[in-house]
Amino acid sequence: MLPRGRPRALGAAALLLLLLLLGFFQFGGDLEYGRPRGAAALDGAPPADPGGHNRSDCVQPRPLAPKCELLHVAIVCAGHNSSRDVVTLVKSILFYRKNPLHLHLVTDAVARSILEMLFHTWMVPAVRVSFYDADELKPQVSWIPNKHYSGLYGLMKLVLPGTLPLDLARVIVLDTDVTFASDIAELWALFAHFSDEQVIGLVENQSDWYLGNLWRNHRPWPALGRGFNTGVILLRLDRLRQVGWEQMWRLTATRELLTLPATSLADQDIFNAVIKEHPGLVRPLPCVWNVQLSDHTLAEGCYSEASDLKVIHWNSPKKLRVKNKHVGFFRNLYLTFLEYDGNLLRRELFGCPSLPHPGAEQWQRALAQLDGEDACSEFRQQQLTVHRVHVTFLPHEPPPPRPLDVTLVAQLSMDRLQMLEALCRHWPGPMSLALYLTDAEAQQFLRFVEASAVLSARQDVAYHVVYREGPLYPINQLRNVALAQALTPYVFLSDIDFLPAYSLYDYLRASIEQLELGGRRKAALVVPAFETLHYRFSFPRSKAEVLASLDAGALYTFRYHEWPRGHAPTDYARWREAQAPYRVQWAADYEPYVVVPRDCPRYDPRFVGFGWNKVAHIVELDAQGCNPPPAQAITSACPRPHRQEYELLVLPEAFTIHLPHAPSLDLSRFRSSPTYRDCLQALKDEFHQDLSRHYGAAALKYLTALQQPRSPGA
Amino acid sequence: MLPRGRPRALGAAALLLLLLLLGFFQFGGDLEYGRPRGAAALDGAPPADPGGHNRSDCVQPRPLAPKCELLHVAIVCAGHNSSRDVVTLVKSILFYRKNPLHLHLVTDAVARSILEMLFHTWMVPAVRVSFYDADELKPQVSWIPNKHYSGLYGLMKLVLPGTLPLDLARVIVLDTDVTFASDIAELWALFAHFSDEQVIGLVENQSDWYLGNLWRNHRPWPALGRGFNTGVILLRLDRLRQVGWEQMWRLTATRELLTLPATSLADQDIFNAVIKEHPGLVRPLPCVWNVQLSDHTLAEGCYSEASDLKVIHWNSPKKLRVKNKHVGFFRNLYLTFLEYDGNLLRRELFGCPSLPHPGAEQWQRALAQLDGEDACSEFRQQQLTVHRVHVTFLPHEPPPPRPLDVTLVAQLSMDRLQMLEALCRHWPGPMSLALYLTDAEAQQFLRFVEASAVLSARQDVAYHVVYREGPLYPINQLRNVALAQALTPYVFLSDIDFLPAYSLYDYLRASIEQLELGGRRKAALVVPAFETLHYRFSFPRSKAEVLASLDAGALYTFRYHEWPRGHAPTDYARWREAQAPYRVQWAADYEPYVVVPRDCPRYDPRFVGFGWNKVAHIVELDAQGCNPPPAQAITSACPRPHRQEYELLVLPEAFTIHLPHAPSLDLSRFRSSPTYRDCLQALKDEFHQDLSRHYGAAALKYLTALQQPRSPGA
Repeated sequence: MLPRGRPRALGAAALLLLLLLLGFFQFGGDLEYGRPRGAAALDGAPPADPGGHNRSDCVQPRPLAPKCELLHVAIVCAGHNSSRDVVTLVKSILFYRKNPLHLHLVTDAVARSILEMLFHTWMVPAVRVSFYDADELKPQVSWIPNKHYSGLYGLMKLVLPGTLPLDLARVIVLDTDVTFASDIAELWALFAHFSDEQVIGLVENQSDWYLGNLWRNHRPWPALGRGFNTGVILLRLDRLRQVGWEQMWRLTATRELLTLPATSLADQDIFNAVIKEHPGLVRPLPCVWNVQLSDHTLAEGCYSEASDLKVIHWNSPKKLRVKNKHVGFFRNLYLTFLEYDGNLLRRELFGCPSLPHPGAEQWQRALAQLDGEDACSEFRQQQLTVHRVHVTFLPHEPPPPRPLDVTLVAQLSMDRLQMLEALCRHWPGPMSLALYLTDAEAQQFLRFVEASAVLSARQDVAYHVVYREGPLYPINQLRNVALAQALTPYVFLSDIDFLPAYSLYDYLRASIEQLELGGRRKAALVVPAFETLHYRFSFPRSKAEVLASLDAGALYTFRYHEWPRGHAPTDYARWREAQAPYRVQWAADYEPYVVVPRDCPRYDPRFVGFGWNKVAHIVELDAQGCNPPPAQAITSACPRPHRQEYELLVLPEAFTIHLPHAPSLDLSRFRSSPTYRDCLQALKDEFHQDLSRHYGAAALKYLTALQQPRSPGA
Repeated sequence: MLPRGRPRALGAAALLLLLLLLGFFQFGGDLEYGRPRGAAALDGAPPADPGGHNRSDCVQPRPLAPKCELLHVAIVCAGHNSSRDVVTLVKSILFYRKNPLHLHLVTDAVARSILEMLFHTWMVPAVRVSFYDADELKPQVSWIPNKHYSGLYGLMKLVLPGTLPLDLARVIVLDTDVTFASDIAELWALFAHFSDEQVIGLVENQSDWYLGNLWRNHRPWPALGRGFNTGVILLRLDRLRQVGWEQMWRLTATRELLTLPATSLADQDIFNAVIKEHPGLVRPLPCVWNVQLSDHTLAEGCYSEASDLKVIHWNSPKKLRVKNKHVGFFRNLYLTFLEYDGNLLRRELFGCPSLPHPGAEQWQRALAQLDGEDACSEFRQQQLTVHRVHVTFLPHEPPPPRPLDVTLVAQLSMDRLQMLEALCRHWPGPMSLALYLTDAEAQQFLRFVEASAVLSARQDVAYHVVYREGPLYPINQLRNVALAQALTPYVFLSDIDFLPAYSLYDYLRASIEQLELGGRRKAALVVPAFETLHYRFSFPRSKAEVLASLDAGALYTFRYHEWPRGHAPTDYARWREAQAPYRVQWAADYEPYVVVPRDCPRYDPRFVGFGWNKVAHIVELDAQGCNPPPAQAITSACPRPHRQEYELLVLPEAFTIHLPHAPSLDLSRFRSSPTYRDCLQALKDEFHQDLSRHYGAAALKYLTALQQPRSPGA
C-alpha cells in the first residue's frame, strides 16, 4: 500500500518512456521524405474475404473497401494555419474510418515540423505518415502564374503522380478545408467503379464559375460544362503515369497560358482544361463526396435530396461565415471535429493487423501493467502518458539568429491566459510557451489571441499546445516542450505567474555579453524573485523601486512566508548592495529562476502535479556543474571533468515578481491529501537514487540534504 | 458604430427571450404526463418516397426507416446518476440520427425535474419528449421480488404497452447504459423484418447465464438457449396489446415465482420466461445491436466479425472498468459522447418538417438578425443564448423543510473548483451552486467531487451545470439558475471567492427568527464583506478577531482600494460598534452580499461578463422595496404599496471574507478594451430606461445617481 515500496516500478516506467521515445525516432526514420519503407507490402493487393462478415440477419451490405485494406490519402499543406486545418480534417477521417491509413503529406518546412511532432506524439494505431518536401516541388509548378489564394502550393496536386512512391497505384487527394461526415473507405470503394480508361475521380463543380457568365468579361479556363472541383480527387496514379500525365497537363497549361494570363483557381483550372480535352479520363463522383459551400453555391441541389452528406468542402474564403441555408448544420459538423478530443482517436482497429509501432506497443503494455490499487497509480500513469503536442499552434516567426539572444520559457493552462498580455508588455523578446489544453480549449485560446491586439501583434511568441490527458498537471513535460522549442542560444526559465522587470530582456543580453558566456564559461544566471500580495500594484521600474517596496512591505522576497528555503540561497541581503554579479552555492530545496544555455539539462518528467519539479532541475544543473565550494580549487572532486560547469551567478539588477492568484488544484490536493504527499516523497526518493547511480559519491550532498523531511517547493 | 444607439434592439432581445421562455412553457405543457398531443399525427403513417433520393452514381442503398418518419424511443430512468447516463445515451443517438425522434421517458420525480429542464433548455430541433410517472407504475410491478441492482425500475419495461399512448404502435426500448455507434433508424428499420406473429425484437444474450452452468446450484429463470438481453428491445406495442401481453407476463411470472425466490435480472428474466413459453413472439436481432460488455461476455464472437458495431451495452456493474480485450475502443466511443458538446446537436434535420417549437424559432430568428458588425454584438448574442441546464448534476438530498433555513447561492467555473472544499467547511448548511462548464469539464468536475472526501460527504450541496456557450460569462443567468433551485425559504446570495464566517449559517437562522422575518416584514440582511490579500491567512473566528485583523492591516473592507463605493453604505464604522442589526440606505453602486427570501427579484440577465451585475440586482431590490428615508412615514411615495418592502439591515456579527485570486478573463477584457466598457455602459443605460418604465418617478433616484460616469463594480 505504501508508495515507497515501488521505486523500481517507477524506474522501469521511466525506462519504458525512454524506449518509447526511441521507438518514436525509429518511427520517425520511417517517415523520412521519399518512399516509406514497407508501405508497398500492405498496398495494392486487395485481401480476400471482402464480405462474409455480415451475420445472416444483417441487413446492411455496405460497398466498403475490402476489410483492412490500407487506404492512401495525400494532402498538400503549408504554414501554421493550414497545419491546424489538416488536424481537423484528419480527425474527421479517423473518427469514421475502419481501415488502416497511410497519409502522404506534401509540406513546407513549417508544416512538416508541426505535423511530424503531432503524429509522433499522437500515436494513432494503424496510421502511417510520410512527408514530401513541397519546396523541392516548387520548380515544377512555379512557371505557372496563379492568382488563387493558395499560392504555389495550390498547384502541387498536379505533380503528385511523379512525387508519390512509384509503386503506389491509387490515392485520395484532399484539400485541407474539407470535413468528412462518413467512412473514407466508402470513397475509396468508388475506385472500383472506374472504367479502364478513367484515371481521375471528381465531383462536378457546384457553381457556375466555369460557365463564364458570372460577370461581364469573366473568362474562366475551359471546362466540361460546370467543370469539376478538385477539393476531393481520386487518382489512379498507375494509369496517370502510363498515359503520360505530366506531359499532358504541362502541354495543356502552356497552351492555355498563351491566351489566359494566369490560373484563377490554381490546379483546378488545369485539371479542368485537361479534362475538357480528354473527357474520357474523368470518372464523375456522386456530389455528396464534395459538398461545396462556396458563395452562390448550387450545392443545395445535391444534398437536399441526399440524406447522407459524405464530405463538406469549405471552399469559400469566408469559411465558417459563409452564407448558406444549412450552414448551422455544416458548422456543427466542423466544430465537432475541431473540438473533438484527439486522444479518443487512439483506438485500435478491429480485426486488422496493427502496423508496427514499436514504442506504442511497449507503452500500452506498461500502461496495462499499472496496478490500479497502488496509491500512487495516478502519478505513475501520468508519467507514462504521452501527450499529443502541436508546436507553433499559431503563426510564428522565429527571431533572427543572434548569438546572445534569450527566449523566455514558461507553461500554462487556461486559467492563466490573462497573464499573457502583461507578459508581452514586460518581455519584448522571443518566448516559447507550452499550453496544457483540451482540443476545445485550444480553439478558445486561438480566439483569445485573435481578440487581443497586444498578442496578435507579436510574431515572436511561439505557443505550443500540449493536449490534456490524465488528472495531474505534467508540469515538467510542459517545460521540456517549451524548452525544446526555444530557438535562441539562451533561455530564461520562468513561470507564467511572474512578470519580469521591463528592462530584463535587454539587461540579460548585456550581461551574457559582459560575462562572456558565449565561450567556455557556462553559468546559470539567477534572476532574484519577489512577490506582491496585492491585486493591483505599481510595477517597480528599477532596483531602487524594488528596494523601496520591500522596505515598505509592498513586496516580499518570493515565498518569504511559506517557503523561504526555496530562494534563500540567492542571498537577498547581498543582492541589495551588489553592484556586480556574485556567485552563490546550491543548498537543499533551492529553486531560483535562471537563465541558462538552451542545451541545459531537461526537467525531470517524473515530477507531475505540485511539488519539487523545479528543485529537481536545479539539483541536476548543480550536479552537472559539480560546483566546488568557492574557496577550493576549481577541479577538485568532479567525477566528470569534461562537463562544462554551471556557476550560479546572481545578477545585481535583475528581478522578477510573482503576482497573486488562487492556489492551483494540484496545490490544493497536495495540501489536503496525505497520499499525494507520500507519492511526492516516493518520487523524490527515486530521483535521489537515480542521481546516485548517475553521479556517484558527488551526489551524496543531495541525499544528505534530504535527511530532514519538510514540505516541498513548487 | 457606438453601442448606445441600439437600446431598442436590446429591449427587443429581452422581449424575445421572454417569449422564448413562454414558448418553453407551452412546450412543457405538451410534455405533461400521459398522452402527448399531436404525436400520433406524425406516427404510424410511413411517408412516401423512401428511396429515389440517391443519385444514379450512389452506391449505397441503406436499409433505413423512411425519410422523416418519427421514431419512438422509451427509456426508464430514476435518480441523479441514471439521468446523467440518459444524457450520454441521447447524445449518441442524436449524433447519428437523421429522423425526428419522440422520447418517452418513464421517470421518478428526481429524473423528471432534471430531464425536463435539460430538454427544455437543450432545444434540439425535431425532438419531442414525453414524461410518464414511474411512481404511478410501481404497484404494477412491486409484487415481484427482484434482486437486480436496478430495483423496481428495472421491471417497468414490462408495463410499457399499457403505459405508452394507445395509438403508439412501435417503440424502441433502451437501457440507460447503452451507447449508439450508428443511426437509430437502422435499428427501427428492423421492424420491417418482423413476421406477423413476432412482437418483440431482441438480441441473444452474450453470456452463459441462462444455461445455468456458471456455478453449482446456479438456477436461472427459464430461457430459450442462452436467452435474450433486454438492454435493447423492439416492441410492437399494437400487437402486444392484441395478444394480451399484460396477462401473459403476469401469468408466467406468477408461475415461476412459485419455485424461484425472485428475479435476478429484473425484467429480463420475465421476458425470457415468456419467450421460452411462446417462442414465436420473438424476432432475434443481429448481435451488433446489443454488444454486451458484461463480465465473461461472449460478445467477441459477435463483433470480431462485424466491421460495424451498432450499440454497445455496458451491462457489467463495473461499467467502464470491465475487463475486455477491446474495452479501449468501446470506452473511447463512450467518452466521445460523454464529453461531446451537446450544443452541437442543436442542428436542424435536412428536408424534414420541423416539429413545432414556437420559442426556438423566434429565438433562431432573433439570433439571425443580430448585426455582426455591431461593436456590442458579442454582448447581444450572449444575452440571447439559451444555455442547456442540468440541475442537480450529482446526487443531492434536499434539506428537510425548516421555516428559517438559508441556502448559500453562488456560481463558478472550473478555475474556482478549489474553493468548494473550503466553502463546505465554512458553510455547514444547504448550498445551491451553478457551474458554468463544457460537457467535458462537467466530467472533470464529477471526478473532482468523487475524489474529495469533504465534497462526497455533503448531500445538501446541489450542483447545477449550465453548459458553456459564447464568449462572455453569463454571470446573472448562472445566479438565477442557482437561485431558482434553492429549496429553503431564505437564500444567502454570495460569490464563490468568499468564505463566510464559520458561525454565519447558525447566526443567520437565529437572526431571521429574532427579526421575525417569517411574517410581513421583508428585509435584505447585509453580511459585511472583507478581503484578505494574503494567500494563506488565519480565518478569524469572531468579530473581535476581524476587528483586530482590520487594525493590523491583515484584512480590509472589500474593495477598499479599488472600489470603496461598492460597500461603503454598509457603514463599517457603525458595524464596528453595533450590537444590534441596523438599517442602511441604498446609494449608487451599492452591492452588498445579502440574505433575502427565496422569492426575491431575479438578477437581470442582460448583464454578462464583468460589471454591474450585482449592483443592478440591489437597485431592483431597493426599487421593489421602495425604501423611504427612515425619518419619513413608511408609506410615502411608493408606487406599488402592495409590494412587501426590502429593508436593508446590516447584521452586527455577520461577516464574509474574499480570498485573493488572479483577475478573471472578463475583468481583464473590461480593463483593456474601451469597446467592452462602452457596451457595459449601453447595458446600464438600457437597464435604467427599463427601470423608469417599471417604477416611474420612484426610479428617478437611480437615474440621478448615474449622472457621473465611473468605473463599475463587479
